[in-house]
Amino acid sequence: MSLNKKQTPIKKNGIWIIPLTILLTLSIDMGSNRIVEMMQPLQPDDFLTQSHAVLDFIVDYYKNIENYPVQSQVEPGYLRKCIPDNAPYSSEPIEAILQDISNDIIPGLTHWQSPNFFAYFQANASNPGFIGEMLCTGFNVVGFSWIASPATTELESIVVDWMGKMLKLPSAFIFSENEGGGGVLYGSTCEAAVCTMAAARDIALNKIGWDNISKLVVYASDQTHSTFQKVSKIVGIKPSNFRPLPTSDATGFALSPNVVHMAMKDDVASGLVPTYLCATMGTTGCCAVDPIEGLGLVAKEYGVWLHVDAAYAGSACICPEFRHYLDGVELADSVSFNPHKWLLTNMDCCCLWVKSPSSLQDSLSNNAVFLSNNASETKGVIDYKDWQVALSRRFRALKLWVVIRRFGVAGLRDHVRSGIMMAEHFEGLVGADPRFEVVVPRRFSLVCFRLKPKVEADGNELNRKLLEAINSTGRAFLIHTLIGGMYVLRFAIGGTLTELRHIIATWKLIQEKADLVEAA
Amino acid sequence: MSLNKKQTPIKKNGIWIIPLTILLTLSIDMGSNRIVEMMQPLQPDDFLTQSHAVLDFIVDYYKNIENYPVQSQVEPGYLRKCIPDNAPYSSEPIEAILQDISNDIIPGLTHWQSPNFFAYFQANASNPGFIGEMLCTGFNVVGFSWIASPATTELESIVVDWMGKMLKLPSAFIFSENEGGGGVLYGSTCEAAVCTMAAARDIALNKIGWDNISKLVVYASDQTHSTFQKVSKIVGIKPSNFRPLPTSDATGFALSPNVVHMAMKDDVASGLVPTYLCATMGTTGCCAVDPIEGLGLVAKEYGVWLHVDAAYAGSACICPEFRHYLDGVELADSVSFNPHKWLLTNMDCCCLWVKSPSSLQDSLSNNAVFLSNNASETKGVIDYKDWQVALSRRFRALKLWVVIRRFGVAGLRDHVRSGIMMAEHFEGLVGADPRFEVVVPRRFSLVCFRLKPKVEADGNELNRKLLEAINSTGRAFLIHTLIGGMYVLRFAIGGTLTELRHIIATWKLIQEKADLVEAA
Repeated sequence: MSLNKKQTPIKKNGIWIIPLTILLTLSIDMGSNRIVEMMQPLQPDDFLTQSHAVLDFIVDYYKNIENYPVQSQVEPGYLRKCIPDNAPYSSEPIEAILQDISNDIIPGLTHWQSPNFFAYFQANASNPGFIGEMLCTGFNVVGFSWIASPATTELESIVVDWMGKMLKLPSAFIFSENEGGGGVLYGSTCEAAVCTMAAARDIALNKIGWDNISKLVVYASDQTHSTFQKVSKIVGIKPSNFRPLPTSDATGFALSPNVVHMAMKDDVASGLVPTYLCATMGTTGCCAVDPIEGLGLVAKEYGVWLHVDAAYAGSACICPEFRHYLDGVELADSVSFNPHKWLLTNMDCCCLWVKSPSSLQDSLSNNAVFLSNNASETKGVIDYKDWQVALSRRFRALKLWVVIRRFGVAGLRDHVRSGIMMAEHFEGLVGADPRFEVVVPRRFSLVCFRLKPKVEADGNELNRKLLEAINSTGRAFLIHTLIGGMYVLRFAIGGTLTELRHIIATWKLIQEKADLVEAA
Repeated sequence: MSLNKKQTPIKKNGIWIIPLTILLTLSIDMGSNRIVEMMQPLQPDDFLTQSHAVLDFIVDYYKNIENYPVQSQVEPGYLRKCIPDNAPYSSEPIEAILQDISNDIIPGLTHWQSPNFFAYFQANASNPGFIGEMLCTGFNVVGFSWIASPATTELESIVVDWMGKMLKLPSAFIFSENEGGGGVLYGSTCEAAVCTMAAARDIALNKIGWDNISKLVVYASDQTHSTFQKVSKIVGIKPSNFRPLPTSDATGFALSPNVVHMAMKDDVASGLVPTYLCATMGTTGCCAVDPIEGLGLVAKEYGVWLHVDAAYAGSACICPEFRHYLDGVELADSVSFNPHKWLLTNMDCCCLWVKSPSSLQDSLSNNAVFLSNNASETKGVIDYKDWQVALSRRFRALKLWVVIRRFGVAGLRDHVRSGIMMAEHFEGLVGADPRFEVVVPRRFSLVCFRLKPKVEADGNELNRKLLEAINSTGRAFLIHTLIGGMYVLRFAIGGTLTELRHIIATWKLIQEKADLVEAA
């Protein structure tokens, strides 16, 4: 496209005179003195055409997902061979990009949405979660403070109340109960850990002074998610003051209040300051459930912040028959769980509730001049920037709201129960084959099992080989953990697309591979 | 729907016998003993129908966006009156949800995508950014380690190389140059600050011991984003050891290397340990540019980690004519900027590059048993979980990759340049009206200006009234900042939909409101 002189922008008395036709559809590439046609980044027709193409692509992906190896079989470095070393200078068509995703990206994905994905914990995708993300991404507002986009803050406070009531959390955690507590949405449990641990740290330091930060101690079990150890270092707790307290088969690998009590007593005797205790409702390794009430009483005795991490298993507590696993949560200062795991909410979404938001705010407030405004100063609104690590934040509440409304409490309970029912079924299958054993009692939708060795010393190697044999087929993906030193296979159920037929087929695969590794 | 006896699940020898017809389409609500039809969360036809409805909704939103007040005019608490106190028990149709979004949510949004949004800095949405998010959300993989989904890690390392080369970063920050450095994608600058500051802290503490953490000092300017002060407390730096060093009109509010040098010298003399220095390329308040090279030399002298925060203005450096603002970056240990601000990438996306990834890993590694795998142990792959705060992570690289390919380097430069050209135009308009003054020289696409008061003491109140008069019309949204105590209006240009006509109309609005507040 060429321009005549009249259409060229000129500067006159210090003011740019730019013909609108240029500014709207063209711009001058100063580097090359070339006139290029500028893409209109939000033009409605393009927006629809291209978004529809991508939707079709995603639906095809779901239709074909069982045809892909669950765990990617690529070798490290494979993608550098497919993709140019430098960004393209000019625009490329969406068709070319989707073709490259098919050819180059999909083979390198491990398919978390495959119905045969039984590794880690699930990361449920769903159409309501997807739609919620589209709306969030479409509006693309940044609600760090109330004034920056009031609905983002207000919907978030409402939807965390909804979720808190679904979990039957004590009123001290629910905004609408007006006892001072409430909730917030984060991207990860890790952020919940950073924010609550920073708050607990500052409460302690307000008493003993910042120069004594090296005296603070954080408690957890040896089954607690490693994130809590990482976070305690991030917030400046001396690494040797993180206590991963021992658990054992005797308590189902749950943390014993007595063990915590003894550890705190010893630390106090040594001049240290117990500060934070993490209780886990459903550990990652074998889904142990710490006794929240017992731990809460110890925490109260020592004036320690009690956090309940229910990242995975919290979802189950929306069903009345599982809610008792959260008993004692009224003694906690904070509790978190991740709808992005098992509750049909696409990544990412973590709920945190606290009894004392002011403790978070004291540690995390961000009071730049450019953030000051009347609403924050006079109207008592929530400014979530002061509840979290980052300033910017996405409109995650919209996603969680759409998910809850589309499924309803009933639909979400159905999803949880169908996962647990399938896990019971799998547990039964394992129990019915005398070559195998379920290593710890099944909790929720996680089954930890192994192939029994003829000689115990060979057990770990035998099961390592079994796991490799299963995963290398690409027909299922499991991971292992160590339970009391024993190499154990984790079978985590709850994928959005997983049906009983996938459980049965995978069990058959496991049995076949057991035949092979036992014969080898 | 009713079930006959044969279709009821039964437990037999410890194994659930569940008719597939039940498990596929039904589930039992144990709470109410009711049989409910279960929504299929990823059923292709539903997925397309509902997603199309939402796409149409979003396109309508963009079409109508100029009709909404830019800054929401709702009162605090408005939304509680519209939304039920509890989650619905049963599924609700998508149409009802979209209707509620129109009626209840949109009035409470401040419209960051409005072409008349000139507040804070921009958060650009674009169709490529939106599409990239759809793909990320559709795959919904969690690539915390290479093995968990290899393509997510590999594409990220390639796309941060692309972006690093677009910024002409030194080879020490580019993976493919094999000097040991490289980049990572985060959600926010704040996370870049946490990770680099934790790394710098641990380098210092490895020399002087954790018990001396209270001696560490972090340096920035009084214009540095308040996030850095917040983060220094998060990572356990004693609050009184954060130094917001003074700047002035004389340096255009840039941080003077001499001032830093003196501060470090004093601290060392007091037995403190200079640890981390933040240089900003384009501050939030008035877009000051710190002299990176001069600050880098001081940082080297004191063995301090130098981070360059180019959150907003980094985008401009993809244009050769602006790259010089990053001169000296070869002396930095890390540099970050946010494509989610001005580079047409929907929230969220922040790039961080470091020379020494092992410093990050030493502070942030997460080595749980369930994360161990052959690739991590033997094949030298990148596990991004060890570069960041959280374990879980989204496939943001896909979004940035789609954005870069759809626009090309040329298209992205065009977008930056059109914003700067419009800012020059606005600067000219302000300069041509003798009642106004541009308070600091325009940098990039931010113009800081004010209405000149007849009596200087009235200046702040006059401009506060002017700002309120402008924003309350709903026809534009600006915010203020304080520059050397002076209340100044910030006009931040660069929105995806902003055209010259919006600048001109808003300037007319500002002039009209100036007439009124001057007359009052």
